[in-house]
Amino acid sequence: MQYYQDGFRGGKPDLKNAADTRREYAPNAMLPEKVDVLIAGTGPAGLCLAAQLSQFPEFSTMIVEPSPMNIQKGKADGINTRTMEMFQAFGFADAVKREAYWVNQTNFWTPDPENPKNIKRIGRVQDVSDDSSEMPHIIVNQSRIHQWFLEVMANSPTRMQPDYNWSVETLTVDPTTDDHPVTVTLVNTGVNKGQKKLVRANYVVGCDGARSNVRTAIGGELHGDAAHQAWGVMDILANTDFPDVRQKCLISSATEGNVLILPREGGYLFRMYVELDKLKEDERVANRNFTQEDTIAAANRIMHPYTIDVKEVVWWSVYEIGHRMTDRFDDVPDEERATRNPRVFTAGDACHTHSPKAGQGMNVSMQDTFNLGWKLAHVLRGYSDPSLLHTYSKERWTEAKRLVETDHQWARIMSAPPGTSELDKGEEPRFVRAFKENLEFTGGLAVKYDESILTGNQDNQALATGEEVGRRFHSAPVVRLADAKQMQLGHAAEADTRWRIYAFAGSADTSESSAIHTLADWLEKDANSPVVQYTKAGQDIDSVIDFRAVFQQTFDQLNYENMPSLLIPKKGRLGIQDHEKVFCVDHKGLGDIYDMRGINREQGCMIVVRPDQYIAQVLPLNATAELTKFFGNIFVK
Amino acid sequence: MQYYQDGFRGGKPDLKNAADTRREYAPNAMLPEKVDVLIAGTGPAGLCLAAQLSQFPEFSTMIVEPSPMNIQKGKADGINTRTMEMFQAFGFADAVKREAYWVNQTNFWTPDPENPKNIKRIGRVQDVSDDSSEMPHIIVNQSRIHQWFLEVMANSPTRMQPDYNWSVETLTVDPTTDDHPVTVTLVNTGVNKGQKKLVRANYVVGCDGARSNVRTAIGGELHGDAAHQAWGVMDILANTDFPDVRQKCLISSATEGNVLILPREGGYLFRMYVELDKLKEDERVANRNFTQEDTIAAANRIMHPYTIDVKEVVWWSVYEIGHRMTDRFDDVPDEERATRNPRVFTAGDACHTHSPKAGQGMNVSMQDTFNLGWKLAHVLRGYSDPSLLHTYSKERWTEAKRLVETDHQWARIMSAPPGTSELDKGEEPRFVRAFKENLEFTGGLAVKYDESILTGNQDNQALATGEEVGRRFHSAPVVRLADAKQMQLGHAAEADTRWRIYAFAGSADTSESSAIHTLADWLEKDANSPVVQYTKAGQDIDSVIDFRAVFQQTFDQLNYENMPSLLIPKKGRLGIQDHEKVFCVDHKGLGDIYDMRGINREQGCMIVVRPDQYIAQVLPLNATAELTKFFGNIFVK
Repeated sequence: MQYYQDGFRGGKPDLKNAADTRREYAPNAMLPEKVDVLIAGTGPAGLCLAAQLSQFPEFSTMIVEPSPMNIQKGKADGINTRTMEMFQAFGFADAVKREAYWVNQTNFWTPDPENPKNIKRIGRVQDVSDDSSEMPHIIVNQSRIHQWFLEVMANSPTRMQPDYNWSVETLTVDPTTDDHPVTVTLVNTGVNKGQKKLVRANYVVGCDGARSNVRTAIGGELHGDAAHQAWGVMDILANTDFPDVRQKCLISSATEGNVLILPREGGYLFRMYVELDKLKEDERVANRNFTQEDTIAAANRIMHPYTIDVKEVVWWSVYEIGHRMTDRFDDVPDEERATRNPRVFTAGDACHTHSPKAGQGMNVSMQDTFNLGWKLAHVLRGYSDPSLLHTYSKERWTEAKRLVETDHQWARIMSAPPGTSELDKGEEPRFVRAFKENLEFTGGLAVKYDESILTGNQDNQALATGEEVGRRFHSAPVVRLADAKQMQLGHAAEADTRWRIYAFAGSADTSESSAIHTLADWLEKDANSPVVQYTKAGQDIDSVIDFRAVFQQTFDQLNYENMPSLLIPKKGRLGIQDHEKVFCVDHKGLGDIYDMRGINREQGCMIVVRPDQYIAQVLPLNATAELTKFFGNIFVK
Repeated sequence: MQYYQDGFRGGKPDLKNAADTRREYAPNAMLPEKVDVLIAGTGPAGLCLAAQLSQFPEFSTMIVEPSPMNIQKGKADGINTRTMEMFQAFGFADAVKREAYWVNQTNFWTPDPENPKNIKRIGRVQDVSDDSSEMPHIIVNQSRIHQWFLEVMANSPTRMQPDYNWSVETLTVDPTTDDHPVTVTLVNTGVNKGQKKLVRANYVVGCDGARSNVRTAIGGELHGDAAHQAWGVMDILANTDFPDVRQKCLISSATEGNVLILPREGGYLFRMYVELDKLKEDERVANRNFTQEDTIAAANRIMHPYTIDVKEVVWWSVYEIGHRMTDRFDDVPDEERATRNPRVFTAGDACHTHSPKAGQGMNVSMQDTFNLGWKLAHVLRGYSDPSLLHTYSKERWTEAKRLVETDHQWARIMSAPPGTSELDKGEEPRFVRAFKENLEFTGGLAVKYDESILTGNQDNQALATGEEVGRRFHSAPVVRLADAKQMQLGHAAEADTRWRIYAFAGSADTSESSAIHTLADWLEKDANSPVVQYTKAGQDIDSVIDFRAVFQQTFDQLNYENMPSLLIPKKGRLGIQDHEKVFCVDHKGLGDIYDMRGINREQGCMIVVRPDQYIAQVLPLNATAELTKFFGNIFVK
């Protein structure tokens, strides 16, 4: 964690200096009449976006929510490893790790062939494969996720807070102006219920859920699987003789249906999903009247011979969810892409919904707005042309489509009771095999953006075989040269909308002379360098592109003082030196990043990483022309 | 982290349910007239004690402080590994790890033999030896440590806050009564400056620093080294070409004196100690008038050929400190030990002071009150006879004495410039060697309490050679059976004043039948069991003694459902099962706890650990009579 760059200030380092231009959030303060960005909805998608944009007092962001306050309990609870990597960039992954339940194993139970009335454990799978991510797969109350984002906002220079009790009713876009062309009608849901208010915005993002008014206003419709799956879900405090109650379990009974167990934070609480359309026919018909007691009774029947003695039902619901999505995630029909830029976006459930079984919904919603956030910030800070915003719908729609397809397939496999024949043969049952094959997907790690202005081609992929262009930058252990601290290289990245270039030195490179020195000097001084071209006067030299280097030596074999000046830049109000840009190979047994990520030892390489942690380019260290060209397509002078 | 035991409640899990009996801390609320414990001073010692006692609404605790608020900047900053282990028990070690500077290496610089005007690096030492602790040695602003303790207090059932602007002026003890026998005179230091107020207390703890009024009131005097060492110390934001500025450095120049560099949190700030009595004579005489500019100039001369360009002096001071201590840490003269129990205690600087060079002061102060806290809680909750409180002065005085002696020796070694002869011989210089030899001491890991009613003998030490009786329980990696989570066994301990018994199974033991089953059954049911004897009606079965077990198998080789009931107890308002008491050997390469801690594989053993994490006993698994006897000396029925 870096702080005090502009001088010492006591207290919590997460609390940033407040901007003079920040809005007043006092109880009776007026709502703004114009904002740059208006976000509808304080779910995971909306808050993830607000937390990013709250860092920038140069433009104004407002987030509205019909509810009077943050939720106390939420439907979603699973956080995959990819999302944890993103939380690390927001600074609260450590807090989540401490509070949350860690999914270490997933267990499979099916009818005991010798006595099919009983269930029996048939397999265990390590839930997070070794070195698939440095982060755990965790489960925690959705409301806590909201709170952590709300804290990031409250600590930001803008001290942003949601405007509760306001709902986006509708909006219109005036295509003839660039001055706040979106007129949003807000309606009060609180003490002045029904009162309307117009707010003009440059951009509107609908994170307002499956019944999104923003989506409706831009003519979007959810299409897809009409055959809804109905689930009874309950969060309970209960005693049981079922031995795996603190592990994630997929349980299929012979005749009574299926149950999914998800242990929850705090050591006692757990969630049970009871699949209602797998219940007996008479119960299925009664789905709509299915009670809490029915769910508990069904769970007990399915889990026979084990019993569940419920002490407190914390939350209970029957819900139906299909796989559905809209045709696009912004307000621009395909035929108009060439002639106008988007002004309105949708994210999360507003544009795609999923089965809860793979635990993807909340994760993919946050990843939507983590993709959109830096793009909006680039445009609103004058870094990029507004046409950059087309890439949001393109990238995330394609990804949502893949997700819906995989998830659909997956949900069917998980719901199909395993044939006894498979068990008899002693083979690994199909759903265990499918679960293992899908771990990368359920971890959120399978996302791969197609080649575009933001994502390069595979020409130099051989230089870093474990860091695939289009996929998320995969962290690995390193040691920081200046202070010999063991850390994860990926944790150098913060949710600050900066681009990063990680340069890996070749085997002949030293602290005295290296291709990295040449590259650093070019980046710092050459007229064609993107750092020179796009860093504005008065900004720190790493404000736009953050250049870091990794050497093959251990920390005691390099001379820190001989590093190129771009790697030891002087920054901030005081012009003091940043010591956290140069890394070495770990010397304490955690592994060699070159080996772990397939970095070419002889030549080294550079990896250009987008602000959302996805790999834009793998390039040779001398590929300066390619850097000029690549960033020239994204930034404007 | 375990929570929701008494039912679900949203929000931050660190915030505990408030006790009905909690004090009102509103601005104009009256001060109490009687309290059970009055703590003087909100430094590290006072706050560490208050944070513990705040958990118990059964008795009342008050902490007063002459200052109007928490400090913004502090003199102390080093937190050794032992203290970090304690912070883990308080729940804030993760937060500290995230914010703090980690001391990974300590480097040594001396005059370059070829050009003695220049300094040259002659050695590097890994600062925390492998497996000496699972925690890092860190450096962070003392005021942040205070804030973390204040948060623990604010989150506690009593919602405790300091009473600022009140100083303990003096106190008297009435030996004829047990009803709040200590009368304390508080004097206001705020808006009603000079106003006095009497508060009656059962116990008073003076954590009021080197000029302690509490110490004076009980006739204590600091004795010791009159030859004070004077230091110029500054926390600075500065640029330098000195390559090791982000590592701890001990620097000796040939003729200009010595400097100690301590990097600080945030990546930019660092502290420099300039030893003033090693400066040239004319400067030494002028010590008292030594300015900030003089300190900077001296540092630059010592570090030649490197230079320091100071951008901001965050804090600057000249201070003198000797090695001094009082004859006892309570109000009972030795000749009266048999006839009366202590009512007044001192802790931290109030009873012992140290050189800052080994970074011990703040650590040992907190360890004082971590020793005292559980003892006071035991007495005030009726668990133990008040005579238990004699052990505080005995244990901590002996430890402070050892510390002063080692520290004294150490400070002299570190101040003596190394002879060139040593360097010429190519041998490791004496101060590097001494530094290495002292790492266990500076880590706070050398503390060993003598045999007493609280600490057993070495009779069974061979059963656990790496867990020495009298020393702190040394954590190691395990996997929790119920959820297969990799964790540190030592992190099962919280700062909750409970005793812990860790039972290690022998090689023949299984989840179906083991010496642990026998022991657990005895502990749960036998009339001579300390659990049976000292757990009160209505309390959870692990409220007084928390029994946990470790097996030699991996998690997938044991049947959780067959564990004895004491290891899967039902607890809390709802009577729900605790799943966090049974552990296995790590299966993922972090090491085998039996090997790492020298646990006898064939027989196993049990380790009784005090509430302050020190090992009270190592015993065979069948040593029930010894348990009865041991706890019989500590608890009353």
